[in-house]
Amino acid sequence: MTSNPTWILKRFPTGLPGPDDFSLEQRAAPTAGPGDLLVRTLWLSVDPYMRARLSPAKNYAASQKTGEMMTGGGVGEVIISESPLFRPGDIVQADDFGWQPLTTIAAKTAIRLDPASAPVQTSLGCLGMPGLSAYFSLLHTGRPKEGETVLISAASGAVGQIAGQIARIKGFDPVAIAGSDAKIEWCKGIGYRTGINHRSESDLTGAIAKACPSGVDVFMDNTAGPIHDAALLNLNTFGRIVIVGTVALADRFDQPDIGPRFLRRILVARARIEGFLLDDFEAHYAEARSQLTRWYQEGLLEAREDVAEGIEAAPHALTRMLKGENFGKQLVRV
Amino acid sequence: MTSNPTWILKRFPTGLPGPDDFSLEQRAAPTAGPGDLLVRTLWLSVDPYMRARLSPAKNYAASQKTGEMMTGGGVGEVIISESPLFRPGDIVQADDFGWQPLTTIAAKTAIRLDPASAPVQTSLGCLGMPGLSAYFSLLHTGRPKEGETVLISAASGAVGQIAGQIARIKGFDPVAIAGSDAKIEWCKGIGYRTGINHRSESDLTGAIAKACPSGVDVFMDNTAGPIHDAALLNLNTFGRIVIVGTVALADRFDQPDIGPRFLRRILVARARIEGFLLDDFEAHYAEARSQLTRWYQEGLLEAREDVAEGIEAAPHALTRMLKGENFGKQLVRV
Repeated sequence: MTSNPTWILKRFPTGLPGPDDFSLEQRAAPTAGPGDLLVRTLWLSVDPYMRARLSPAKNYAASQKTGEMMTGGGVGEVIISESPLFRPGDIVQADDFGWQPLTTIAAKTAIRLDPASAPVQTSLGCLGMPGLSAYFSLLHTGRPKEGETVLISAASGAVGQIAGQIARIKGFDPVAIAGSDAKIEWCKGIGYRTGINHRSESDLTGAIAKACPSGVDVFMDNTAGPIHDAALLNLNTFGRIVIVGTVALADRFDQPDIGPRFLRRILVARARIEGFLLDDFEAHYAEARSQLTRWYQEGLLEAREDVAEGIEAAPHALTRMLKGENFGKQLVRV
Repeated sequence: MTSNPTWILKRFPTGLPGPDDFSLEQRAAPTAGPGDLLVRTLWLSVDPYMRARLSPAKNYAASQKTGEMMTGGGVGEVIISESPLFRPGDIVQADDFGWQPLTTIAAKTAIRLDPASAPVQTSLGCLGMPGLSAYFSLLHTGRPKEGETVLISAASGAVGQIAGQIARIKGFDPVAIAGSDAKIEWCKGIGYRTGINHRSESDLTGAIAKACPSGVDVFMDNTAGPIHDAALLNLNTFGRIVIVGTVALADRFDQPDIGPRFLRRILVARARIEGFLLDDFEAHYAEARSQLTRWYQEGLLEAREDVAEGIEAAPHALTRMLKGENFGKQLVRV
């Protein structure tokens, strides 16, 4: 029996997930059944959507079950293939990797990666789910016009960093909101015109007004919470808000979010607020992925990663990311 | 000097406007300058947007000034015309009637009415601003598809009653929310499939779920407040909410509206919330007005009016309407 340390969800967290919500247990290496691949895990992806899965509440994704193995996006090397689609040695990406060094995935959910095209872990970041989310939420839901101001929260995060760079490539005017001066400086380096550190601003509404002298035309909201409120107060007539994520609510996920509502303001501004979910764009993944890959290979897309080392680090990396302490796309190198 | 009792705004109201906020003063009959019409007021229109004008706060409409005459939509007969466009005896509608029996309006803002085509006061209701608001907010902003459930708040009001009937004509499935059993019964009579009396329901969310077994596809929100909250919780995936009015906030107009926010729900449902303002559709008024007139003449549009008698009644009619005590389009017959 191979030692295969595996993360189990012990219980649904209250507020932010913490170490007591998970346990690391030794499991036997799993066996690949027909149509499965046995994979050696190289990278695990840690993403905001995972908070919503750690709850019995109804969501767009099925709940993670308590007492069972944590799962999420990952990249690995095929060891045993019980499918004609893959061979041992293939590097694959899939959304249902177990949080364990040896895991099985269904071949039909796996994508073969070309390590010569881009580092394989970019399939979890700028060329994967976060990059595609940035692409579609900005271009298809937000639909900025040339020169319009695009405000992006969690701007150095996995989605925000790609959205800001796409905005620059497309000739929009991207402005960052992030949680440290270092993040803001880095955002400016990848193409954001300017940025706001929401943790050091006492008047966030005023700071956005100063950073966006022509107002905000499109707000890509990855956070919700007080950042949303301040952005909305700066929204131009016919402005659009795309709700991509709500990570600022991660610490009170199962409580109602009480605060000022802005229906009157939405009416007066004729604003549009729209929820975004990547799954709805599946039919267009291939075209977006090839566009993102082209930009990446041309050096137009920079991708910053925050790498936690070893399977042991996975739950802590999740908590850090939900607190906004990561800097770039959060990964675990297994 | 003709006796011309004129309503003056004494001060901006706190909460709902009351009798102490207005004074009725004797004024001389005004004189029509070049380009003006001296008009005998026949009807005054009382509309929810007036609450927003009775405030110094920024809005889409200019504030009503304190110490000056109240103004609003009206219908009247031309007595003296200082414009080649109109002659004495013409019946005209305009948006800037003074609240007085003899008033002047700018000829260029006036529309000549044909009393043979429809009762002249319909130009303030089903064939005027409220009817046009219903038409564009439902068909252009909400954009329901055939068979979809359309929930409408303030359903027997000036906008709601027309929206419900358009929904029926177009093959949508209209459901009413209104504030009395009598209103709900009347709504059913004009084409709503069913309705909910929000004042007698202790569980409004549950009542909407029962009335809309396939969920809500489009919610035309004329009220905001708890009705909005309950409707949103019943919104289908890809559902749309059109913010047409916020009359439920009229009694706390200058205070922030504190309550549960639903960004997570909007994300999960991929819902769209959009503000509506009629002015944006001005280029299409003529086509909509002729469609509404056709339906009216064919007997497909019923228009219920709530008529207050005499210029003296105008402020009280406004307060009643903002409290939802009116039943149909609120008018003052002068």
